[in-house]
Amino acid sequence: MKDKPSHFKLDINDQVATITINRPERKNPLTFESYAELRDYFRDLVYRDDIKAVVLTGAGGNFSSGGDVHEIIGPLTRMEMPELLAFTRMTGDLIKAMRACPQPIIAAVDGICVGAGAIMAMASDIRLATPSAKTAFLFTRVGLAGCDMGACAILPRIIGQGRASDLLYTGRNMSADEGERWGYFNRICDSESLLEEATAYANRLVSGPNFAHGMTKTMLHQEWNMSIDQAIEAEAQAQAICMKTQDFKRAYDAFANKKTPEFKGD
Amino acid sequence: MKDKPSHFKLDINDQVATITINRPERKNPLTFESYAELRDYFRDLVYRDDIKAVVLTGAGGNFSSGGDVHEIIGPLTRMEMPELLAFTRMTGDLIKAMRACPQPIIAAVDGICVGAGAIMAMASDIRLATPSAKTAFLFTRVGLAGCDMGACAILPRIIGQGRASDLLYTGRNMSADEGERWGYFNRICDSESLLEEATAYANRLVSGPNFAHGMTKTMLHQEWNMSIDQAIEAEAQAQAICMKTQDFKRAYDAFANKKTPEFKGD
Amino acid sequence: MKDKPSHFKLDINDQVATITINRPERKNPLTFESYAELRDYFRDLVYRDDIKAVVLTGAGGNFSSGGDVHEIIGPLTRMEMPELLAFTRMTGDLIKAMRACPQPIIAAVDGICVGAGAIMAMASDIRLATPSAKTAFLFTRVGLAGCDMGACAILPRIIGQGRASDLLYTGRNMSADEGERWGYFNRICDSESLLEEATAYANRLVSGPNFAHGMTKTMLHQEWNMSIDQAIEAEAQAQAICMKTQDFKRAYDAFANKKTPEFKGD
Repeated sequence: MKDKPSHFKLDINDQVATITINRPERKNPLTFESYAELRDYFRDLVYRDDIKAVVLTGAGGNFSSGGDVHEIIGPLTRMEMPELLAFTRMTGDLIKAMRACPQPIIAAVDGICVGAGAIMAMASDIRLATPSAKTAFLFTRVGLAGCDMGACAILPRIIGQGRASDLLYTGRNMSADEGERWGYFNRICDSESLLEEATAYANRLVSGPNFAHGMTKTMLHQEWNMSIDQAIEAEAQAQAICMKTQDFKRAYDAFANKKTPEFKGD
Repeated sequence: MKDKPSHFKLDINDQVATITINRPERKNPLTFESYAELRDYFRDLVYRDDIKAVVLTGAGGNFSSGGDVHEIIGPLTRMEMPELLAFTRMTGDLIKAMRACPQPIIAAVDGICVGAGAIMAMASDIRLATPSAKTAFLFTRVGLAGCDMGACAILPRIIGQGRASDLLYTGRNMSADEGERWGYFNRICDSESLLEEATAYANRLVSGPNFAHGMTKTMLHQEWNMSIDQAIEAEAQAQAICMKTQDFKRAYDAFANKKTPEFKGD
Repeated sequence: MKDKPSHFKLDINDQVATITINRPERKNPLTFESYAELRDYFRDLVYRDDIKAVVLTGAGGNFSSGGDVHEIIGPLTRMEMPELLAFTRMTGDLIKAMRACPQPIIAAVDGICVGAGAIMAMASDIRLATPSAKTAFLFTRVGLAGCDMGACAILPRIIGQGRASDLLYTGRNMSADEGERWGYFNRICDSESLLEEATAYANRLVSGPNFAHGMTKTMLHQEWNMSIDQAIEAEAQAQAICMKTQDFKRAYDAFANKKTPEFKGD
């Protein structure tokens, strides 16, 4: 595979990998194959020094319609437990891989963003959306529980336990406006400029101290269920590591000489 | 006891249990007896297949004034430590039982909602309120700490650590408008339609895949202090269980036949 | 040291310690010495019965510009790892001490509040600000990671994981208005009345059941990564302790006699 994926579109420019879920005629559903390939791609990113940020988006004015009804849900209804668990673990592994790679992920969300699509946006670091973004954790609408790929753990930490409960029990749509008010979306953009703004956000991070950004991402993950005192010790170690980087020295030298620092991620 | 409680009003319709704290002349205070009976009722709900959701409300335009000053606070000031701890554990057990039963709880909050009343609303899954709802975690106003029945753990996850700290230190009123802005209340309703809307919410969940809803509730509880990776594995198992339900199969069959699925909770 | 600190201004009135970071000509930066002295002062507060609340502010219309570029960042770029870790642990120990003392801390934030300044405000219990407050967790702008002194653990619990991620990756300014909307600031005040309102807030807590307030603070800290059931048991014990205070008895006696309770913190 590497940079020629079969089940999504991949563009790499200026150390930003733009992943496009790309079946616009069906609003970009996921299949067994695309889940697995996305999981593998995010897993490989841990070792990719040439990619420093990811933009995640969908083709044709929608983000993703989630697990395909015919290609995924149908087969699942006929599986035995070991196969079912293999499937739910595979989808969970995609989310684990998204959180484990050091590259910040910027989701650019337009139109439909539901089911596994909503989960992938949730598991991103930053979320930009258009006014027409429609997000739904709609698992209960297909007879399942709201606990899918970490939603009951992650969503409450983004928008609060009460609002998350409402979305997860009912599967209802969250509007872009609600999403912005509630802290799910970081910014609302025009549909025309969405990808451009997401790419600019990624570029800004890439041109920053991106080794340190990877550490920020790691620590947001590591400290999730630590005590405050444990988290403070963990950050003392993590930040001491960053103080040994050339980027830190460059920043000081630039400030001392009244120049703008240039970061290289080393 | 069962469905003839002595210390609160109980109505069961269409698998929804509506619990009304019912001493309107005193704004629905709680007593030793009503605490214990509510605890026992929520504990029994784990085994009640005929009840699929709970609406929790108060009589006469108020939710609850909390622990009765004369019937609870007075006696507490005269107790020795073992009795005090038995009391705080009993009230805590009510909250544990509310979180442990699989039925989603929808609080319908009008008027006064303070002390243990505010806690019971906080421990519900969904909160609807009227514009005149006045919520106060007023423990510090009676000389106690804000840490009562889980408030220092649960409230910050609903409205954020800073806003929760303000309410818990000062015991001040949170207005309905603040509550909605902060994510404490899911919706503001007219006083006349409050109970109707809460019941409609409950009915909607009951007519959904209510076995799966119970799993959503369990996982929101279980994953509270798990790591992200632990939560994802826990959800892989929980969702695989739900994929073995008839509701999931019904949903697929309905979609495949372009019909609306009918769920039965099995 | 005690109440004659060398590196910050200290005023004690009515059991409120007002700590002013006081180098207004440089927007109140922190130095190795002021970090250490602040850490020691907050550590000592655990044993100070005569101080019941803290107001934390800066001189000259700014809160704090954080770690001084020349006095801290320069030397850090020349240190070996053991010294670096000693430094990051010392700054972390300041935050641990702020969270471990029983006195609620009210931050009064005007103007620049960045780097370690933003962290000290974040680690306070209550935050008041003026419309011109500019908060930035700007570590990435000096080549470091956002994980500094507990930021990746604490900030997401105040404003949500998505908004915290944006601030920690980019180091951008959060406006006072954003801070209020997001739950970072409890209230926006005029610049002229900021210190007065923060002091009034502190005075209100001091004249309340301040032993109980200390317990509230302890439990907000203790329960950070407990399960809900563990937190409920912890609160049953903590509140039972508070029920043995004279303040609780005073409150009941006052209510029974239709008077306003006077609290003494015993």
